[in-house]
Amino acid sequence: MKTRKFTLSEQDIPDKWYNIIADMPNKPLPPLHPGTKEPIGPDALAPLFPMALIQQEVTADKWVDIPDEVRNIYTLWRPTPLYRAYGLEKALDTPAKIYYKYEGVSPSGSHKPNTAVAQAYYNKQEGVKRITTETGAGQWGSALSFACNHFDMECEVYMVKISYEQKPYRKMMMNTWGAKVLASPTDTTEAGRKILAEHPDSPGSLGIAISEAIERAASDPDTKYSLGSVLNHVKLHQTVIGQEAIKQMEMAGDFPDIIIAPFGGGSNFAGLAFPFLRYKLEEGKEIRCVASEPSSCPKLTRGVFRYDFGDTVGMTPLLPMYTLGHNFVPAPIHAGGLRYHGAGVIVSQLLKDQLIEACAHDNLEVFDAGVLFARAEGIIPAPEASHGIATAIMEANKCKQEGVSKTILFNLCGHGHFDMKAYEDYFEGKLVRHEITQMDIQESLAELDTPEIA
Amino acid sequence: MKTRKFTLSEQDIPDKWYNIIADMPNKPLPPLHPGTKEPIGPDALAPLFPMALIQQEVTADKWVDIPDEVRNIYTLWRPTPLYRAYGLEKALDTPAKIYYKYEGVSPSGSHKPNTAVAQAYYNKQEGVKRITTETGAGQWGSALSFACNHFDMECEVYMVKISYEQKPYRKMMMNTWGAKVLASPTDTTEAGRKILAEHPDSPGSLGIAISEAIERAASDPDTKYSLGSVLNHVKLHQTVIGQEAIKQMEMAGDFPDIIIAPFGGGSNFAGLAFPFLRYKLEEGKEIRCVASEPSSCPKLTRGVFRYDFGDTVGMTPLLPMYTLGHNFVPAPIHAGGLRYHGAGVIVSQLLKDQLIEACAHDNLEVFDAGVLFARAEGIIPAPEASHGIATAIMEANKCKQEGVSKTILFNLCGHGHFDMKAYEDYFEGKLVRHEITQMDIQESLAELDTPEIA
Repeated sequence: MKTRKFTLSEQDIPDKWYNIIADMPNKPLPPLHPGTKEPIGPDALAPLFPMALIQQEVTADKWVDIPDEVRNIYTLWRPTPLYRAYGLEKALDTPAKIYYKYEGVSPSGSHKPNTAVAQAYYNKQEGVKRITTETGAGQWGSALSFACNHFDMECEVYMVKISYEQKPYRKMMMNTWGAKVLASPTDTTEAGRKILAEHPDSPGSLGIAISEAIERAASDPDTKYSLGSVLNHVKLHQTVIGQEAIKQMEMAGDFPDIIIAPFGGGSNFAGLAFPFLRYKLEEGKEIRCVASEPSSCPKLTRGVFRYDFGDTVGMTPLLPMYTLGHNFVPAPIHAGGLRYHGAGVIVSQLLKDQLIEACAHDNLEVFDAGVLFARAEGIIPAPEASHGIATAIMEANKCKQEGVSKTILFNLCGHGHFDMKAYEDYFEGKLVRHEITQMDIQESLAELDTPEIA
Repeated sequence: MKTRKFTLSEQDIPDKWYNIIADMPNKPLPPLHPGTKEPIGPDALAPLFPMALIQQEVTADKWVDIPDEVRNIYTLWRPTPLYRAYGLEKALDTPAKIYYKYEGVSPSGSHKPNTAVAQAYYNKQEGVKRITTETGAGQWGSALSFACNHFDMECEVYMVKISYEQKPYRKMMMNTWGAKVLASPTDTTEAGRKILAEHPDSPGSLGIAISEAIERAASDPDTKYSLGSVLNHVKLHQTVIGQEAIKQMEMAGDFPDIIIAPFGGGSNFAGLAFPFLRYKLEEGKEIRCVASEPSSCPKLTRGVFRYDFGDTVGMTPLLPMYTLGHNFVPAPIHAGGLRYHGAGVIVSQLLKDQLIEACAHDNLEVFDAGVLFARAEGIIPAPEASHGIATAIMEANKCKQEGVSKTILFNLCGHGHFDMKAYEDYFEGKLVRHEITQMDIQESLAELDTPEIA
């Protein structure tokens, strides 16, 4: 019997998170105050986040201890399996060896609980009673609902109204874990009321939902805010993925030449890639790390590196990032988790320094890849996850053309159980290509008056 | 860190299925021909099933080898995890130790692929090109679609029309694995056309769908039929669950006093309970095995033990079973997988011989249990699985009342990702109790003219 799945035991769950900043040749530039444009310190974040998370956001320590209580919850689904994709290799008739790490076994079905549990834990430690957040398609909202429920904290999720109406099952999942889900824009915040006054029928947007969640947290001392990607501490928490994968690749007697992960704000990519990238930064080991983004939201492949806001309305600190401009509105692709205008600070610096790569795939190519994978490997992937599959297929086909065998590892970050409507659209031929022109991007960037980076 | 999850490696997947018939003090009575009422031999099943499965249906061998190719596919999700339910124990404040085996990690989300893969394999070996089956809510249909796709065989699923319309996502899951899904009654079979002529708007039923799938298979030499529960070979395949659980309970340094599993046709229950029951049959070890059924379909707790048909229209052989009568129509509870009038032959004989027990729960009690579990343990269970949870809670509460600590193990047979509408109904107060009276049951049984058992 060929070994197809590499399984670790509970004792193999990492006890430290890996902070890549310690190993970066060029450290990320500091965040700037949205008004003064001067560098800000950790204190500026105190109204929104507990101190432990702010310390993790700025720490230079290479390793951060994972509290036992967090590891204890991780055991519910971690260590996650790593598979050799024999079925996919056969379907592609490629000499490449393909592996994938599967994060869809978590209770909410993606990698998101890795950070949700950690964030809920530190909030609980500091006496926070309630956490607010925003969610689009609902992956992040369900992960945080699950985590808050575990620690007996309230969770308020501002869910983009159009998703709230079109995706009732994700909402119901959050309710099952006891969370309160509001269709944003709501009349409970100033930001929401302002939008509703101007546009009573607004379908909402992630930008509006972020503003509502932040306003709610900033105006109540018992309430903090939580973000599911982009920030340094979120990336840090996700590094359990790659650390486990290193052990599993050792079990397989192999080491990846190419690491691939879908890219929204960067936490998924960071989670798998950073622990491997350490070998490149420390020892100069040859390894390519490829971030896979939608061609309809191509901040890494077609954006610019400059300071920009994390949200649409400009309430957050200015961050040095690859961005399409904070007013860029991506096409309504099904991979809702990747529809974000900017990239996290660490990943942006690494790309700038050419230590990682990026590529983009159209919607249709992504679903071709997802269905091919479901039939070859048996697991139905989330549309976000299918971006990584599309890149892996592209690299495996390249190996075939060149007649070389490389070892490819990608992050299968979630299952598609709540995305079957998207598959239906695909099978019924309702999906369309979402071309964006250089003009679209230039227009969005032309509006930016945020500081440039020399 | 308390060990919460007991993980086996690929090498621990059993290499044999356990056939409890070899150890039963009273063997099951033979099936009878539906017309002559005389005992039938294996040959009678040849138009519907491949010979290898028919041999497994009647074998007296205690152990049946699992082919390497089947074990190889099992590795995609097996061994499944076994958990200590610390969260649930705490929520119940019980002295009982509660464990659960989680089968929801399979690609289709339940225990069903354990047999679907085996059945598809043997069909493929014998040159079958196409397998037909019926499905209600879709758990079984998706498992067989997944399995047929793996072996490159066609799969035709007759899906009860009302489910086809109300549960498009399960249908889409089957399509993603390449299966053809038909809304039954169809105009492609005589059985279907007959129903449509009389009731053009028929919402369909499992009985009609079975008739269509059987007719299709019987009329085409390239096509066989497949059933997801009830039959002996299906129960046999599921015993991988209990065999793994025995090893995992050893890792936990424990052994169950009480084993609990949801009950529809019996394969779920058999899968977990039979390998443990062996210790009772061989060595007289004290162990209670409790089958958990819906009170709206109480064949084990309120049915009679006599010969009855496996389907509604009376095409199958007569089987010696606990039954409510093959015309009994259960209330439309959300646990669609448990809405079956009869119990498999082996389980029926074991119950008759008082070697196992049964209990029943109402719909509302089941959802109370499911939501309590989701919040205490983090996993959202399928409504079928919540029946086992309800029984486990009942037994744990009994322990508390009596001040004794017992070890309880139950089968969490699937996740509820495709059942969120049911949770919504529960939260919105739309679920109602489904009382059935002794009169309802007596009426259904009074219609039976099948042979009684002395």
